[in-house]
Amino acid sequence: MGTAAQRGGAPSPALIFETLLAYERSAALKAAIELDLFRAIGDGPGDVASLARQCSASERGVRILCDYLTIIGFLVKTEGSYRHTPTSAAFLDPRSPACVGSIAGFLVNPMMTEPFERLAEIVRHGRTSLPGAGSVEPENPAWVEFAHSMAPMMAPMAGPLGSIVLDGMSGPVRVLDIAAGHGLFGIEVAKQHRLAQIVALDWAPVLEVAKGNAQRAGVADRYATIPGSAFDVDFGGPYDIVLLTNFLHHFDPDTCTQLLRKVHAALKPGGRAAALEFVPNEDRVSPPMAAGFSLVMLATTNSGDAYTFRQLQSMYHDAGFEKVSAHPVSTGPHTVVMGHGR
Amino acid sequence: MGTAAQRGGAPSPALIFETLLAYERSAALKAAIELDLFRAIGDGPGDVASLARQCSASERGVRILCDYLTIIGFLVKTEGSYRHTPTSAAFLDPRSPACVGSIAGFLVNPMMTEPFERLAEIVRHGRTSLPGAGSVEPENPAWVEFAHSMAPMMAPMAGPLGSIVLDGMSGPVRVLDIAAGHGLFGIEVAKQHRLAQIVALDWAPVLEVAKGNAQRAGVADRYATIPGSAFDVDFGGPYDIVLLTNFLHHFDPDTCTQLLRKVHAALKPGGRAAALEFVPNEDRVSPPMAAGFSLVMLATTNSGDAYTFRQLQSMYHDAGFEKVSAHPVSTGPHTVVMGHGR
Repeated sequence: MGTAAQRGGAPSPALIFETLLAYERSAALKAAIELDLFRAIGDGPGDVASLARQCSASERGVRILCDYLTIIGFLVKTEGSYRHTPTSAAFLDPRSPACVGSIAGFLVNPMMTEPFERLAEIVRHGRTSLPGAGSVEPENPAWVEFAHSMAPMMAPMAGPLGSIVLDGMSGPVRVLDIAAGHGLFGIEVAKQHRLAQIVALDWAPVLEVAKGNAQRAGVADRYATIPGSAFDVDFGGPYDIVLLTNFLHHFDPDTCTQLLRKVHAALKPGGRAAALEFVPNEDRVSPPMAAGFSLVMLATTNSGDAYTFRQLQSMYHDAGFEKVSAHPVSTGPHTVVMGHGR
Repeated sequence: MGTAAQRGGAPSPALIFETLLAYERSAALKAAIELDLFRAIGDGPGDVASLARQCSASERGVRILCDYLTIIGFLVKTEGSYRHTPTSAAFLDPRSPACVGSIAGFLVNPMMTEPFERLAEIVRHGRTSLPGAGSVEPENPAWVEFAHSMAPMMAPMAGPLGSIVLDGMSGPVRVLDIAAGHGLFGIEVAKQHRLAQIVALDWAPVLEVAKGNAQRAGVADRYATIPGSAFDVDFGGPYDIVLLTNFLHHFDPDTCTQLLRKVHAALKPGGRAAALEFVPNEDRVSPPMAAGFSLVMLATTNSGDAYTFRQLQSMYHDAGFEKVSAHPVSTGPHTVVMGHGR
């Protein structure tokens, strides 16, 4: 999230102009993904007429969109033809196994964008403009979209998370995956450890996505589910590992502590609870991606936040955990914050 | 408009995540301007509780918004208190004479943002999703907002533009200011040359804004107006100078040529027509701000574009101008492209 100001240089209204129009960047990239433009670029030859034909779009539209994508770093233009940058080849061409294009479906959808259209009002009142509990309103269909579309963004972090939570474990391991979503994290644990049994918890329509992914990963026989809210359902257990991925940030510290207490009660002696979180530094303004995530929680929830390690540590301690450790994930902006039970 | 990719570094999905969420930046800066936060920052002391009180806003909202503005380069945070960056002190604090905060009122308004919500559809069809002629539909009230709010962004370019168009002129000078908007450019010519008589042309409600500005600038006695569309009304004349500021880009080249022919016919021998435009290089992807402006024309018009010098030169020639010269404006992203009549 670098800016002209951070890159140095004299004060200039250009940064203000550029920032007020930053929504154009989101819209341009989303449009290109919707038009399947990055596949057409990969297919070649990359001239405007061919791209317009391949995308069933107008030449005026394709030319101007491709020029804009070149300006913002997603295409390279040479003599009127466009080709992938290394980033777009790896992460935007649908034929790349690392393609994350689907995340536009979640990141630029009305549940996310509409609150930002009334952000001043949200700052005034201190809570989301969405009805009820905002993004965490029970059965919010946005989480089905999340489960479908955000998996590729999370996938690179699943391997490291699996290694961290399984470290030192052997023999049969029971794992509760709270707010499983796409299910990738629990599934990865099952893949890394043949004696792991996973219980995924989420709202029923979301679990359908996770079950499909477990099936495709070949771990369906060790994959059970609990439909409902983590705050209401009986966890069963006891468990060796409880996963809390991208979940605590939606709630205030008291609610998180209460949930962690319930998690602690469901752990075996020596068990562990692992939260995957955006964890900003104590200054709360770095690193940019983790710290900037607080704004999403302001816009879409009533009391969520990106918590610092010290805040998370305090929640874990108050919930009865003895030791808390932080494990930054090198393959993504997240940190695993792990509480160790008695 | 620098990006992670342009700054170098390995391919990373972070750039994609950051770009899809770029709309947050626009929303955060707009919200801060609406809340008059930059005035409160300037007043000090800059802690969250004081700022929340000064802005009649919640502490949660103010804290998260200020952290985000720090991340994107508009505030500095030290020990929990916020202060201006050089850019925000000069261009966002309402007490600064150079403040451009009002431009949020035009740049992030529904006429601008709504087409970007359906940009894929616009690329498919090659024209705006707005009704009729889009932003240039007759009497579109957005131009009154433009006239009110965009003046501070244009003001730094008025002085240089005045010098360029008046260069070598002496004695009485008659000036037609087409699509005058806020009127700043014609008013500046009147200020620089006491014998200049200005005729401002725009839709009637927009001219009210220009007339107010002419009054405040003390040139109202040399300021006349023609209400209506530049394509329909009689220009009167003949004129020594015709200004076409931020206008040609809304139309296709044939329409521009037709208008320039009408302008040429209204000029005295030796007169000149000066367009102030975003003029990209021939590669159409640099410089970023001028080249990126094409996307706004795709989104909001049926056939507008940011034209290269070669394209503008050709329009001028086809309209009967003998010589065409380009004069980049050092105080802004625009270029004055001047056609010299016979």
